[in-house]
Order: sequence, then structure tokens, then C-alpha cells
Amino acid sequence: MKTLATLEPLTTRLLEIQRINSASSVLSWDQETYMPAGGGAARAEQIAVLQGLAHQKLVSPDIEQLLSQWVDPATGQAAEQPRDLWDEPSRSLLREVWRDFSRAKKLPSDFVMTVSRECSLAQQVWAEAKEQNTFARFLPNLRTVLSLKRQEAQYLGYTDSPYNALLDVYEPGSTIAALQPVFTQLKARLVPLLRRITESHVRIDDSILRHSYDQTRQLEFGRLVLTAMGYDFERGRLDLSAHPFTTSFHPTDVRVTTRVYERELQSCLFSCIHEGGHGLYDQGLDQRHFGTPLGDSVSLGIHESQSRLWENCVGRSRAFWRFFYPVLQQTFHNQLQGVDVERFYAAINCVKPSFIRVEADELTYNLHIMLRFEIEQDLIEGKVQPEDLPALWNQKMKEYLGITPTSDAEGVLQDVHWSFGAFGYFPTYTLGNLYSVQFFEQAKLEISRLEESIAAGQLLELRRWLEQKIHRWGRMFTPDHLARRVTGTTISPDPFLSYVEKKYGEIYQL
Amino acid sequence: MKTLATLEPLTTRLLEIQRINSASSVLSWDQETYMPAGGGAARAEQIAVLQGLAHQKLVSPDIEQLLSQWVDPATGQAAEQPRDLWDEPSRSLLREVWRDFSRAKKLPSDFVMTVSRECSLAQQVWAEAKEQNTFARFLPNLRTVLSLKRQEAQYLGYTDSPYNALLDVYEPGSTIAALQPVFTQLKARLVPLLRRITESHVRIDDSILRHSYDQTRQLEFGRLVLTAMGYDFERGRLDLSAHPFTTSFHPTDVRVTTRVYERELQSCLFSCIHEGGHGLYDQGLDQRHFGTPLGDSVSLGIHESQSRLWENCVGRSRAFWRFFYPVLQQTFHNQLQGVDVERFYAAINCVKPSFIRVEADELTYNLHIMLRFEIEQDLIEGKVQPEDLPALWNQKMKEYLGITPTSDAEGVLQDVHWSFGAFGYFPTYTLGNLYSVQFFEQAKLEISRLEESIAAGQLLELRRWLEQKIHRWGRMFTPDHLARRVTGTTISPDPFLSYVEKKYGEIYQL
Repeated sequence: MKTLATLEPLTTRLLEIQRINSASSVLSWDQETYMPAGGGAARAEQIAVLQGLAHQKLVSPDIEQLLSQWVDPATGQAAEQPRDLWDEPSRSLLREVWRDFSRAKKLPSDFVMTVSRECSLAQQVWAEAKEQNTFARFLPNLRTVLSLKRQEAQYLGYTDSPYNALLDVYEPGSTIAALQPVFTQLKARLVPLLRRITESHVRIDDSILRHSYDQTRQLEFGRLVLTAMGYDFERGRLDLSAHPFTTSFHPTDVRVTTRVYERELQSCLFSCIHEGGHGLYDQGLDQRHFGTPLGDSVSLGIHESQSRLWENCVGRSRAFWRFFYPVLQQTFHNQLQGVDVERFYAAINCVKPSFIRVEADELTYNLHIMLRFEIEQDLIEGKVQPEDLPALWNQKMKEYLGITPTSDAEGVLQDVHWSFGAFGYFPTYTLGNLYSVQFFEQAKLEISRLEESIAAGQLLELRRWLEQKIHRWGRMFTPDHLARRVTGTTISPDPFLSYVEKKYGEIYQL
Repeated sequence: MKTLATLEPLTTRLLEIQRINSASSVLSWDQETYMPAGGGAARAEQIAVLQGLAHQKLVSPDIEQLLSQWVDPATGQAAEQPRDLWDEPSRSLLREVWRDFSRAKKLPSDFVMTVSRECSLAQQVWAEAKEQNTFARFLPNLRTVLSLKRQEAQYLGYTDSPYNALLDVYEPGSTIAALQPVFTQLKARLVPLLRRITESHVRIDDSILRHSYDQTRQLEFGRLVLTAMGYDFERGRLDLSAHPFTTSFHPTDVRVTTRVYERELQSCLFSCIHEGGHGLYDQGLDQRHFGTPLGDSVSLGIHESQSRLWENCVGRSRAFWRFFYPVLQQTFHNQLQGVDVERFYAAINCVKPSFIRVEADELTYNLHIMLRFEIEQDLIEGKVQPEDLPALWNQKMKEYLGITPTSDAEGVLQDVHWSFGAFGYFPTYTLGNLYSVQFFEQAKLEISRLEESIAAGQLLELRRWLEQKIHRWGRMFTPDHLARRVTGTTISPDPFLSYVEKKYGEIYQL
């Protein structure tokens, strides 16, 4: 039987490409954390050169030649029959390399470099525009990026909508047709639940989160929780950036960032836990397969399931705070004395329409995504123009959440994604929410006394389970296949909806 | 007449190569500042891939073809006659590109990658070995690196000694034969001067430098001096690293590092000024020529002249402290009250044989270099084996400075250079010392009332002069030619020796 050893001429080349991509990621990390402002234009060029090189190498004739002797170009499946001439890892590897190769092959290298350069520049302009609260400052760059991504969809090809071409980049197999019913179901049950909460006699006072909290201590507490989760600081770092993110250069160097506000205790806290969930995934990938799809994360939806599982299912649970609240109280003695764990638990689970997606509660969060899903679909299909965005954004906020942003910074400019061309990325956040509950329910079935462990501050067993069930497989299975292997079922909004209905039904005494 | 416009097909390619090199420098900077320990092996591979790519692109057939239509392969001069068919910048550019190309062409790309990988790894092991004070830990890596550099000398070719091949890398045109007389002259006048100082009745008390100084405030003061020097923080950063260094990715992103010890005030202070001098050079290069030799620094000797000019001629001068000492006193009020500027000036100019080169006074510094110059020459020529280094080091320290290190960390392990393969680099430090005095003497002739300006804290005129005379020219002229343009004469130990004889004659009342 043919094994990965047969594929070594291919994987050696992939490893080199991955190292170029890792270098490019280091440059991006630096851009978001430490780069002096003046270095931005040069940085955009450096990243563009690296991405151009990585692209050229991926679509090079020798990779094409290697692939074409093994893969059926139409399907991406291992070419020889019977199929079991190849072992399963090899078949998966070929399928996924073919996917990357055939997509890359549709894009000219010059175009890849242009996209890279323009996105890098636009991201920097976005950060300034957000700080200055001026959408107009960002508009020309957004126009450029949007037009490039529309062009990219044309290069990639699609059925039904050019937006489908972009969705598939982030979540293999994802389409508008598959996502729309999910959002419809979510809306159908979330909106009434939200109304019942608003009308509930229970009023949660979350003002405790907006007292003054020393920023250094907030970071120290974030670091403490990350360590408890099993995030390895020998193979990682925690830094500050405008928008929290996780990046990986290799499983031995996976970095997370956060932000800290003196008067928003939940911001640093939950972004640390959230990014820590991403970080554990990347630290849990199999080093032996680094550089090949088997050492790469499977999709953004699955990636987000890891961050949301830790942030919400764990980090916003009673069990978690049974252990960690006394520690937090000790850290912020003056602010939290006399506030019992129940009041704190309610405060961090307060449901309230708000402007900022990443600060949103578990319920309204998906409405933020729905809004973006609709807008970016229209942008890519050309039904909406970039200059119409602020008004459209505010109108949809009013419609879905009943509130109207008073500035672009807390409206259309809040997210970094469109600035770096990530149209089609947002829906994976909702997929992540749904997966996170499905995975966590399964973990509770398989790990005996999981909630008791969490309540004792012991998080490593859960982490190990996730590593065994999800992280270490890389792209061995498709996202859907992986979900079925882990949970026995495919993605569905029901577990998530049942979870929030139960949790918030109790909190708000519905 | 042919101009740089003619060379655009070439410079476009060089620009791409420079961007790869810049990316590689970002990765090295990160390795020395923020990279988690676990990421080291992966980092070495990433840098090796980038350096391999940059090398392959430099020696590619299309660059060779472009060059060979313009350059006489034997001399590197513009091929067509009469020579003035090319303007001066074009001739310089061709000469320097030819120099880089023909040297690179002698090295196989695989070899370049191996050197890069091994040096990156060895540098990390060196840092550990130094921390653990164990030369044996570093020895295997040193052996590997040394044998690679000896191999490199063979590839490059040389007359007289393989060490000459390596010297030329850092200081074009430099040879043992040219350096030996310089060191001999230095030794002939420095050793007696040192003896007279030791025998002088003047005893300087520098214990004030070893009181307790808050590290954050030390860094703030360093930042203040850097700003006064004209170092632009919009295009730069100051970070911490084990060994202070300067690195540049583009004139808009030039970073310096320092280190801070609570009980060694001079360490952070003078490394900030020193690296700031390097930083001003790199920030002062002409952006329009970025990526070509005309936008690159001319040699390490000239580079070091900039750091030493600021560190010594300015930073250890009475004039400088007339302005900055009151500021320092204000910063460290408790420690420095009652210490007048004369006592402080004497303390920072205390001459005393010491173990650590970078902390050495202006006089003994060159003896540290002489020791390294002799040892590395013998290492490269195979007359000395790596395992003999600690004993040899200590023996020479005894001989030249009269003291014996009590540990490898303060002996043979103190410098990073050999770990990253930089044999032949140290002599440029002494060249820098000599140039620095020659340039500063010239600046005093050309800038009216320079010392008064410095004494008023006004450093920008000096910086402008250096930019105009040196920085902006890049590699337009050879180091020697540049020195003649600036000072009317070539390199010589005399101005340096006269400077130290006068300065220390006065301090020690000889």
C-alpha cells in the first residue's frame, strides 16, 4: 500500500512553501503588534513578495507534475484504483493538496501579490480610520479591496453567486444555500427568546464589569487562565493588538493577542480565553505533518468552534467561575469584594443588544453575524456599493438589534476583516458557535464528571479530549466528516438553540 | 549618457531580493526579542528558506545576463568605453551589484541555506550556553559553524589566508596585511598610555554607576537621548535583547535594542546611544535607492564609525553631559544628588581593564578587538581548535589586559558574533573607532560651534552633517573613497590616538 512516504517529493516542496507562509505570518503579526507606523508601506511590499513566492511555488510545474501522476484532476481523489492502494492519510493529503493547488492555479501570481499588498495597506488604513472614526478615510481602500475580491471570485468560478467562491475559501463546501436555512432557523428562535428576555422581570446589573481594573493585573489574570487551559507559553506569547487574534508559525510558535480596557473587565478576559481556544488548536496540530494539510487546521468554522467552546461553554459557565472567581476576587479585591459569584456570573451573561460584535452576548452575537452575512453577500454581488455601507449597517442594526450606532467606529468600522479582504469569513463565526455546543455536549458525554473538573479548575482533560478528537487530525477529514466523527451527527442549530434557551431561561427566569 | 533608468530591469529584481532579505531580518529581530523559546528550530528553517531564496534569485540567469551586458566580469566596472557613457551612480551601482553577485555566485544555494540554518540554531544555543555559563554546551555548534565558515572561505577564494576571504565580506578590501600594522600602531601607543594611567596618582571612583537605578527609568532616559539624537520613533523601536543590536528592514523601519541592568547605569545608556548611531545611519539611507547598493550601508567599519562617534565622541564628552547630566540627575535624583558633572564625567571615562568588550572604556576596547582578531584568524586558518578557546581566551586576556575571566560567560562566551558565523567582523569595530574620531574632527571643522551646540543639547545639526556626508550616499563610494571625500585623508590610527592621549591625559593628569 502506498503511504505518506511515497508522497515525500511532494511534501518536501510543501514544507518549503509553508515556511515562506510562516515567515509571512511573522511579518503580519509584527505589523499588528510592534511595527512602527512608518514601516507600513514597506511591510506591505515584503508580505506581497512572500505571498507571491509561495503562490508561484505552489502552482509550479513540478508540483503539478507530481500531483497529476497521483490525482484524478476532476475529483482530487487518488487516481489509482482500487482506492485502497493508498492509505487514508495519503488519500486525505492528496485530496487537500489538490484543493489548494487547483484553487491557487486559477489565480495569477501577480494578482495574488496585488491582493496581498492592497489588503496589507488597507488594514493599516482601516486601523487609522477606526481610530479617527472616519469611514471616508477607509472608503478608497475598501473599494480597491472589494473590487479585487470580486475579481478573485471570477477567477475562482462559482455556481449561483460569486460570494459562494469566497465562502468556500474559509469553510470548504460552504454555500449561501446551505447557510441561509441555518440563519433562518437561528433567527426564528433567537428573536423570540431575545424578546422574552427583554420583557423578563429579571434585570441584570453588569455595572461591576465597568469599574476600574488595573490593566497589568487584567493581563496577568488572562495569562493565568491561558496557562490553566494548557496554552503553552514556551511555544507561545500573549501580546496586545487593536483587534485580538491568533497566529501560528509552527505548532512550537503560536501567538495570541488581546486588548485591555481599564473599564471593561470582560474584554481582555474573554478575548484571552477565546484566542486561547484558537491557540490550543494550533499548538495541538501534529508537528510531524507540519507543512502539509495533515498538519493544518481544517476550517475556520472548526477553528472558531474551539475558541467559542472555551470562551462560552467553559468561560461563561458557572462551573468555571466556581474555581476562578475567588482567584479573580483576590486579584481585584477592592472592586469585587461583596460581589458574589452568582452576581458575577449573571453580569458576564447579561443579554443586551450592543454595538460591538466581539463584546456581544451569546444570543445577540449571531444577529451581528447575520447582518454581516447579508451585507457582504450584497457587496460581492454588486447590489450594494461601499459608500452605502454606514447607512446600511445602521439600518440593519436598528432592524435586528433595535439600536443605532452613534459612530462608524462602533458601527461599520469595528471589524478588521473586510480591510484584509476577508469577505465570506464572518459566517464561520456562527458555524463555530453551533459546532462549539455540539462538541461540548459530546465532551460532557465522554469525559466523566467534566463539569466537576472544570469547577475544580482542572481544564487539561478537556483540552486533551479536544486535541485527540479534533486538533491532531489536521485536514485529514473534511469539516463535515470531522463533526460526524466527533459527534455522530452533522452541523445543526438545535443543540446551540437548546443550550441558550436552557441557560438564559434559567438566568432570566423565563 | 546612461543613467539608473537604464538599469531598471536590474533594480526591480534587486528590490524583490531585498524584500526577501528584509523579511528575513524581521524574523531575526523577532528571534532576538520576542520569539518563545520553543519556536527556535522552526525559525531557523524559515530564515534558511528565505536566505536560500534570496541567494537563488541573486545568482539567477536573468540577473547574470543583465549584468554581463553591462559589466566587465573581470573588474566589475561598467563595460562600455568611454567610461563616462554611464553616470556615476550607475557605475557605482554596477560595481557593487557585481561585487555581491560574483561573491554569491561562488556559493551553492544549499550551502547558503545550511549556513543560515546552523547559524540561527547556534545563536540560540549560544544564548543558553552563556546564560548557563557552559562553553561545552556551545562547543558542538561552534564547531559546525566554524567548519562551515572555513568552507565558505574556500568557496570564496583568497590570497594569503582564508581569513582574508571573510574580512572582505564585512569590510570591502580589508586584509590581514592591511589590518596588522593598524593594530601594531595602536598597541604601540595604547599600552604605554594604559600603563601611565594605571600608574597615575588620579584614582577615579565610578561606584556611582553601580547604585540601584530603576530599569524603566533607565529605558526612558535612553529613549529621551535617542529622540534628541534625531532617531525617529515613527520609523523605529527600542526593545530589549540579550545583546544590543540594530536592524533595518527599510529606512522607514529601523529598530534598535538595548539591555538594562539595575546596577550598571552605563550599560543601557551607552548601548542606546551606540545603537542609535547605527540607527541614524540606516534611517538616513536614501529611500529612493532602497533595494540597490545605493540604498545600502557601505561597510561595517563605516557603520561602526557612526555608533562609536555618537557613543564616544559625543556621548562620553563633557559637552554632551553639560546638557544631559541635569536631566539625568532629575531622573535619578536620589542616586545622583551631590554628584557633580565632573565626577560623573570621570566615572563614565574611567579606564580600567575589564572583561566585557561592550562595557570597555575607549582605550582598552581595541585590545579586546586585537585579541579576537588574532584568535579568529587562527581559528579560520586551523591553527587553533574550538575546544582550546576558553584557555586561549583567558591567556590572551591576561597578556593584553592583565586580568583573567572567572567564567566563560565573562570570557569567551560574551559575544554573539561567532555563533552566527561572523568571523572577520570584529576588526571592523576598531576601524569604526578610528573612523569615528576622523569624522568627528572633520565635523568640528565644518560645523561652527559644534561643541557649544552639543552642550546646549542640540544634536540635530551633527546628525544632518553625518546624513549629508555619509548616510545618504549608501555604497556610492567604497569605504576608503568615502573617508577621503569626508576627511580628505584615508584611515589612520593617529587621530584616534591623539584624541585618547589628549582626553585621558587630561582626565588622569598625565
